[in-house]
Amino acid sequence: MNEPILTFRQAVHDDLKRIVQLLADDELGKTREDFSLPLASCYERAFEAISADRNNELIVAEQAGTVVGVLQLTFIPYLTLKGSSRALIEGVRVASEKRGRGIGTQMLRWAIERARERQCRVVQLTTNKSRADAIRFYESLGFLASHEGMKLQIG
Amino acid sequence: MNEPILTFRQAVHDDLKRIVQLLADDELGKTREDFSLPLASCYERAFEAISADRNNELIVAEQAGTVVGVLQLTFIPYLTLKGSSRALIEGVRVASEKRGRGIGTQMLRWAIERARERQCRVVQLTTNKSRADAIRFYESLGFLASHEGMKLQIG
Repeated sequence: MNEPILTFRQAVHDDLKRIVQLLADDELGKTREDFSLPLASCYERAFEAISADRNNELIVAEQAGTVVGVLQLTFIPYLTLKGSSRALIEGVRVASEKRGRGIGTQMLRWAIERARERQCRVVQLTTNKSRADAIRFYESLGFLASHEGMKLQIG
Repeated sequence: MNEPILTFRQAVHDDLKRIVQLLADDELGKTREDFSLPLASCYERAFEAISADRNNELIVAEQAGTVVGVLQLTFIPYLTLKGSSRALIEGVRVASEKRGRGIGTQMLRWAIERARERQCRVVQLTTNKSRADAIRFYESLGFLASHEGMKLQIG
């Protein structure tokens, strides 16, 4: 059986509950997110802030009318590398029942193409060192683990 | 002799030449940047894009009327971590003749405080694995190298 076609679009408010469900459906995310309903207002506020910023795009992957994946793209203008923009990818999730079917690959390829459209010269992301599968996955797409991804919690 | 006081402010257009000079005055930056004068238009365009975006701040550190350091802060609204914002730091440079005097530490502390003011819960950055001194420096400030920083050149 062929996998149904994936389509991509910017998330709308009606997707928010499903997106938070996907973010929570993850080894690390399940300890960090709150998928109780009605949805916590923190997610509503963040969704509004993302939607209001033209340099942020929350992208959903849809299959047969169901959202099966999500990621966030941030386009950042920098002086470095001769004044080039970069695309930062964060919060990549594929529905657990849909993993292992190439959906993540299609999502990342779409995101890389979108970064090209937005004139970016680099696509970058950080992934927890405990996510060995994710690291191999990104390497298979051509990403190099050339940098340390350093984080400081302040709140 | 005490080190003159450092002050911090958002960069203005008149700082641009000096900032590009600092970006180029670096082991990796010297191969990537173009500090020929008049300044290449790519830097002018990037400066305009950064200045026009309220989620990006190009910060200069000034000492006795001279810009001695620069960094860029990007504030990003995310759904993850219960809808929290993060601050991304990039392009940190201290003038080569001023290194080893704690200027970088003051710059990073200022940036972390600015991230708090902007309600961020995480401050993050990537640094090339070849920059062993930089990695130790960020660890001394409390950053954890918990993530792989993965990059894909697309242009």
